[in-house]
Amino acid sequence: MEFIAPLDALFLLLESREHPMHVGSLQLFEPPEDAGQEYLREFRDTLLADRTCRPTFRKRPATWLGAPQLAWTQDTEVDLDYHVKRSALPAPGRIGQLLDHASTLHSALLDRHRPMWEMHFVEGLADGRFALYSKMHHSLIDGVSAQRLLRRTLTTDPFATEPKTPWNLPRKPRQETQHKGRSGLLGGLAAAGESTAALMKATRTGLLQQQLTLPFEAPRTMLNVPIGGARTCAVRTWSMDRIKQVKKATGTTVNDVVLAMSAGALRAYLLERDALPDKPLIAMVPMSLRDADDTDSQGVKIAALLCNLGTDVADPMQRLRTVSESTRRNKEVYRSLNSTQTLAVAALMLSPMAAILLPGFAAMGTPPFNIVISNVPGAREPLYWNGSRLDASYPLSIPLDGQAVNITLTSNGDNLDFGLVGCRRTLPDLHRLLDHLEDSLTALEDASA
Amino acid sequence: MEFIAPLDALFLLLESREHPMHVGSLQLFEPPEDAGQEYLREFRDTLLADRTCRPTFRKRPATWLGAPQLAWTQDTEVDLDYHVKRSALPAPGRIGQLLDHASTLHSALLDRHRPMWEMHFVEGLADGRFALYSKMHHSLIDGVSAQRLLRRTLTTDPFATEPKTPWNLPRKPRQETQHKGRSGLLGGLAAAGESTAALMKATRTGLLQQQLTLPFEAPRTMLNVPIGGARTCAVRTWSMDRIKQVKKATGTTVNDVVLAMSAGALRAYLLERDALPDKPLIAMVPMSLRDADDTDSQGVKIAALLCNLGTDVADPMQRLRTVSESTRRNKEVYRSLNSTQTLAVAALMLSPMAAILLPGFAAMGTPPFNIVISNVPGAREPLYWNGSRLDASYPLSIPLDGQAVNITLTSNGDNLDFGLVGCRRTLPDLHRLLDHLEDSLTALEDASA
Repeated sequence: MEFIAPLDALFLLLESREHPMHVGSLQLFEPPEDAGQEYLREFRDTLLADRTCRPTFRKRPATWLGAPQLAWTQDTEVDLDYHVKRSALPAPGRIGQLLDHASTLHSALLDRHRPMWEMHFVEGLADGRFALYSKMHHSLIDGVSAQRLLRRTLTTDPFATEPKTPWNLPRKPRQETQHKGRSGLLGGLAAAGESTAALMKATRTGLLQQQLTLPFEAPRTMLNVPIGGARTCAVRTWSMDRIKQVKKATGTTVNDVVLAMSAGALRAYLLERDALPDKPLIAMVPMSLRDADDTDSQGVKIAALLCNLGTDVADPMQRLRTVSESTRRNKEVYRSLNSTQTLAVAALMLSPMAAILLPGFAAMGTPPFNIVISNVPGAREPLYWNGSRLDASYPLSIPLDGQAVNITLTSNGDNLDFGLVGCRRTLPDLHRLLDHLEDSLTALEDASA
Repeated sequence: MEFIAPLDALFLLLESREHPMHVGSLQLFEPPEDAGQEYLREFRDTLLADRTCRPTFRKRPATWLGAPQLAWTQDTEVDLDYHVKRSALPAPGRIGQLLDHASTLHSALLDRHRPMWEMHFVEGLADGRFALYSKMHHSLIDGVSAQRLLRRTLTTDPFATEPKTPWNLPRKPRQETQHKGRSGLLGGLAAAGESTAALMKATRTGLLQQQLTLPFEAPRTMLNVPIGGARTCAVRTWSMDRIKQVKKATGTTVNDVVLAMSAGALRAYLLERDALPDKPLIAMVPMSLRDADDTDSQGVKIAALLCNLGTDVADPMQRLRTVSESTRRNKEVYRSLNSTQTLAVAALMLSPMAAILLPGFAAMGTPPFNIVISNVPGAREPLYWNGSRLDASYPLSIPLDGQAVNITLTSNGDNLDFGLVGCRRTLPDLHRLLDHLEDSLTALEDASA
């Protein structure tokens, strides 16, 4: 019997109908030109012929006399027909219908009586593409690792047959493990003799230190309220070239531009609802601290940066400067922390949800940020699966009480794919944020041209 | 603020991911001959144009400072786009795909932050029909009333336009209220000064008295185990004529034949798995006590009959006689109870789930039955909705810990529609029961011919 690590257990203990604790992904694929009517069904059949499941895909919380235990058990047999489902979109099969469908799937709790993952092959898109919606429980995997796992099923070879099976991927080759997962980090902490309490204390210190650099505490907004049980998902793709143009013209970073773009969109969304606070919104941004000239390949340097989004500023260029200055200063704060503290925060930040849920965090009073914006590492080259080209890969994360919307993005070839997930009651018109993101990027382009 | 009645509150308090407490229905419709491509979408749009919701469709459990309260609150605005969804089946759009889809929908918990009901228009059936899957929380409505509500949206006029809206049905005309709902019955009890405790005591007495007529207590079977969170639904239609032929030839009742048919199917299913107990299975059957010559139209006489299914008997005709004799004797037991006791049991039996969940019931030790088999009153004439003919109406009820499968059936014109819902882990091949039901009916026909 394997005990569930404390952080992972949190996602099980605190899960409820209102707070499903799974990370999701919505991928869009363009089938090969010679794909027939039966392509997708045969594809699924091919995958399902592989009945071998790696431990992560066989794990479920153990029960004893019907009561849940803080331990994992491994199912010897997995009902793959249940876990890998087919579904379809109603006519006319537009992206809107796909998002309605994904929102329904993302709102439903996983069954704890079987391994906690599902994949849904979705057909019926009018443009001939198909979608794969995947979800895994956050106690099994963090968002970064989930994206990486999905990427590892793909190949750069458009003509490769014998598609890899997500639940039976070969072990990671050694050279790919530079970005250590959560367990690696927690292992490192355990080796350093750090307890969860110490870890919490370090995290608090890290966040409080950063707050000192901010002009104000995070204001209360309409985004920071208790949430309901229904989700709305909204996704869109932007060309990386556009972001990079702004970055070059302004001497900032890709992350700065993405944050400024989000800041402008949030400002417009809140203005539209007459709900923009006087004080600027604060974002929490998991971010790598490694510089380009950092040759120390050993340390994992991921920090929970607090970022002043400058939503009180009308001018887009001034807002970008506020964002850029804020991330720069809080990176400095991290550099001043000792390495255990950095490590602790990094461990937590692979699971930003954990930070919000942890009791020590609640003791800080109001959360020190209004929204989590994550940029998850993605693929640089075009990728394929069974001859189908990956068109887009949208991460779908977890809103929480007090954090009614989440923005997560990832790179895919020459694109940046944004995945927004919100509480449907709080943000019934979440798709408006997409239009505001576009307007916000255009404003940055105009101002920096 | 309206307080939630104790029985209704049970369904909220005891609900979990493993025990969703909603009653469902899967209806199949044949669209009118002149229906175009846009028929279904326009139909839904027509319904959604009616934004008025009756109180049942606006109620949700109240919360106070985020904690759930035992009171109802009424939403003034209902997000109908959320509650009335569209979905589609993957190719080739067979009934198997529809049942997979219905099983997924029936496994998902309703959102308590909004009125607890959903309707799903399902397109993509290869035969051109469409389906409506509906679910309502059992705290709002019992299975009998849910079926009746759905029926009241329909009309006998195939050419009627302006379809009735389920969430805005006009109040019931006076003459249709003969079959009182749960609240009516509980109201009757309250008027009689009966408490929930007295009601429980009466129910126990009723059930224990009946047990005396049975040869043994209900055996433990593979159907009487803790259940998981995934459901399998299986449905099929049988011609009422076939049932009535057997009834006539044997001098029994329609209910007797249906129970014997189910008994034979359960026997075959358990035999197939080498899991047939020596002792006969006991079914709990909500049943009307009113005789054909009973002219007292005032009293509601519904009883929780315990029925010896005779699954230990190989001969189908002898099994039918065992069933018939068992129901006859337990009806006699009911006649010997005083009217308050009968009323109490009747109130509970409109919610068979409540009986299983109530604390007093658990104190009886093992449940006195192995399976709930309900025959819910249905329609006698062909019915239409917006010109579409109702082909079938399958009730989908609630499995529970210890009751891993439920059989509910209803009449629809000249047919009997069976809806089976099981725990997917316990009964992965629930559809086999359908074949056994057919074989079992054939055996009864052969034996009585």
